[in-house]
Amino acid sequence: MERLPGFRDFYPEPLPDRDAWSAQVRQYVFERWRAIARRYGFVEYDGPPLEPLELFTLKSGEEIVKQLFDFVDKGGRKVALRPEMTPTLARMVAAHQRNYKKPLKWFAIPQLFRYEKQQKGRLREHFQFNADIIGEAGAAADAELIALLIDTLRAFGLTEQDFVVRLSSRKVWEEFLEPKRAKLGLGPDQVEAFYQAVDKLGRDTAAESQSKLAALGLSLDEVNEFIHAARPTAELQSILENLAARGLAAYVQIDYRIVRGLAYYTGPVYEAFDRKGEFRAIAGGGRYDNLIRLVSGGKIDLPALGFGMGDVVLVELLKARGLVPKLDAGLDAFCIIEDETLRSDTLRLVQRLRNAGLAVDYPLGETKPDKQIKRAHELGAKRTVKLERAANGLLVRIRNLASREEKTGAPEQVETLVQST
Amino acid sequence: MERLPGFRDFYPEPLPDRDAWSAQVRQYVFERWRAIARRYGFVEYDGPPLEPLELFTLKSGEEIVKQLFDFVDKGGRKVALRPEMTPTLARMVAAHQRNYKKPLKWFAIPQLFRYEKQQKGRLREHFQFNADIIGEAGAAADAELIALLIDTLRAFGLTEQDFVVRLSSRKVWEEFLEPKRAKLGLGPDQVEAFYQAVDKLGRDTAAESQSKLAALGLSLDEVNEFIHAARPTAELQSILENLAARGLAAYVQIDYRIVRGLAYYTGPVYEAFDRKGEFRAIAGGGRYDNLIRLVSGGKIDLPALGFGMGDVVLVELLKARGLVPKLDAGLDAFCIIEDETLRSDTLRLVQRLRNAGLAVDYPLGETKPDKQIKRAHELGAKRTVKLERAANGLLVRIRNLASREEKTGAPEQVETLVQST
Repeated sequence: MERLPGFRDFYPEPLPDRDAWSAQVRQYVFERWRAIARRYGFVEYDGPPLEPLELFTLKSGEEIVKQLFDFVDKGGRKVALRPEMTPTLARMVAAHQRNYKKPLKWFAIPQLFRYEKQQKGRLREHFQFNADIIGEAGAAADAELIALLIDTLRAFGLTEQDFVVRLSSRKVWEEFLEPKRAKLGLGPDQVEAFYQAVDKLGRDTAAESQSKLAALGLSLDEVNEFIHAARPTAELQSILENLAARGLAAYVQIDYRIVRGLAYYTGPVYEAFDRKGEFRAIAGGGRYDNLIRLVSGGKIDLPALGFGMGDVVLVELLKARGLVPKLDAGLDAFCIIEDETLRSDTLRLVQRLRNAGLAVDYPLGETKPDKQIKRAHELGAKRTVKLERAANGLLVRIRNLASREEKTGAPEQVETLVQST
Repeated sequence: MERLPGFRDFYPEPLPDRDAWSAQVRQYVFERWRAIARRYGFVEYDGPPLEPLELFTLKSGEEIVKQLFDFVDKGGRKVALRPEMTPTLARMVAAHQRNYKKPLKWFAIPQLFRYEKQQKGRLREHFQFNADIIGEAGAAADAELIALLIDTLRAFGLTEQDFVVRLSSRKVWEEFLEPKRAKLGLGPDQVEAFYQAVDKLGRDTAAESQSKLAALGLSLDEVNEFIHAARPTAELQSILENLAARGLAAYVQIDYRIVRGLAYYTGPVYEAFDRKGEFRAIAGGGRYDNLIRLVSGGKIDLPALGFGMGDVVLVELLKARGLVPKLDAGLDAFCIIEDETLRSDTLRLVQRLRNAGLAVDYPLGETKPDKQIKRAHELGAKRTVKLERAANGLLVRIRNLASREEKTGAPEQVETLVQST
């Protein structure tokens, strides 16, 4: 029996299959995400992976259903596996925001699901680090989030040579379109088509871009000219200065080609890319000041902004740059049982060591001594521990497998002996 | 918009609603689970929350579909949200077992889903600590798992006064039934009905039990007599002695009323209960030696055993016993900005402190000083940090909010000053 296409199994290391995903690497990524979020004063939340379908269509329209794992449950409810976290966040904040002082700084690490058309290497689920600030309208909040994004990537060993955050703003393009809107008859659909065309500037050919823009009564030249001539707005300028004060200026640049696909962004938007351009965006986010009002049915109105960073592109990038560390899941000790009459005494020793917080294993059944030593090495044990009969009772022998140092002592001292060998 | 019934939101603390679930408590539980599993030499794995429906019906029959969140995906596949982890584990092991030396000691913390009939407080999802040993037929492996179960509960502060593991074996009942099988005409359905009746002995009335057993040609008296007279089998005796050698004898007792609902158990089975009998089982498991053969279509045959411990009953029990610790999510420092012209310099300080691994927050916008102090307290900050203008440049003032100790120094020494105040 096979797993579903587009889903991942996470195996413990080591697995020779280089496409296999590792639960150990995943845990390393999650721990870094949590650590840096906490450093920035963000607190963790989570919601259900299954939500009412309407929560997602409300925000993104019926179009999104094509990309969802949606169904009708046994109670007749239309439900869907979450394709993104922001609607759940907005729902949760709308329900309980009175219990919290603003601004909220919240993060989550949800698993997200999309029924993508199947392509090689294209997954249908990923984990995403989501960080959001709720209840702060000023650009200082945008800068705080971008700083968190940068420091999160730096925490994995990535430097300004490896990645850049491209910063833009929906407002810049609104100002560009404003004088043309009436003349060209640009309604919401045309504006959305325009954003999609700008979003694809780097990937479409010039002819394709020209054709898309011409359909809206615009030319590729005037758009390119605007992109190159445009200077940071006062808002973006304050974000840049804020990041510069933190020493993070080298990680960010203005790039008006960034508009972000989703319709709900209202202000600054940004995406992080690897400098070599080998991968899709590592992370992206922006300000979405209207969403909580929408999800709460107009009852609550709070400015909000956030970003998401997926685990798939990040781990691919870390692998490509040699930045996945050799993770130590090794045991502190492997207890050898050469003499089966000492099994109970060895179990007592195992329990003592585990009670002291040490990671310890031993052979569950009778096993030849050389196989036990081999097993200790396979499991990455740092030491072997062996009980032996001595003239005046039992003796414990600790051997450090790297240094080959050996120590012996009374079984009652085993914790100290292990920790010092 | 509401979340789906039976699903939980996990809010950051503090939330006055006492029924609310806390992401912080969840993280505390997960970290304990991981820590103790590692101490026992278990390594982490995970699989997809969505699996082919057949993976679950293969093991448990079509009956289980009633309890599943199942649907047909956009590719026409019958799929289901996982109701338990064991089939996924068996699938993963069958696919890659050649890459691993036996025995495998694997654990996971999946979220599991069941479409339960709706009752007050009855959830449709929970997280479950799963630990399994694959490839070891001897009872030493059963004892190792039960020891892990006990030490996991002890790690939360629960003692032998709080809980007990009730140990039984399917084999004992097979021996009880064997001589009666032909005479009473007991086929697999009757045997399953018998196990269900035994499983409910503590909860059904005597009349209900008597009626169920009489339908099979048995009497409640003979069953009760067998339960009280039966002595540990050699296998169970060796598990008890093994646990006694570890000093864990007080946590386990033989109780043949335990049979576990699921049909696939083949040997020792056990459940952990709170001693006061206030809650459903805290954890349960057993040996399932035939499952991997079944899931691999007969290709791979490995003995296996495991247990599961859910987060819901565990957290309810910990709350009832006052064992949910006061979790410190507090900040190491809150930086006060009294003078807005010092904002950039303060941002530099914030960055320095975060670079040093400290959790730091500050006001994102201009805020009255007394409100900033209030905010520092609300966020559980241990210290305030404030830049001030001095005769010869800038001065940083650290104040410990508990001890009220104050220190001042140069901004370049802020990390050391914060850590020592």
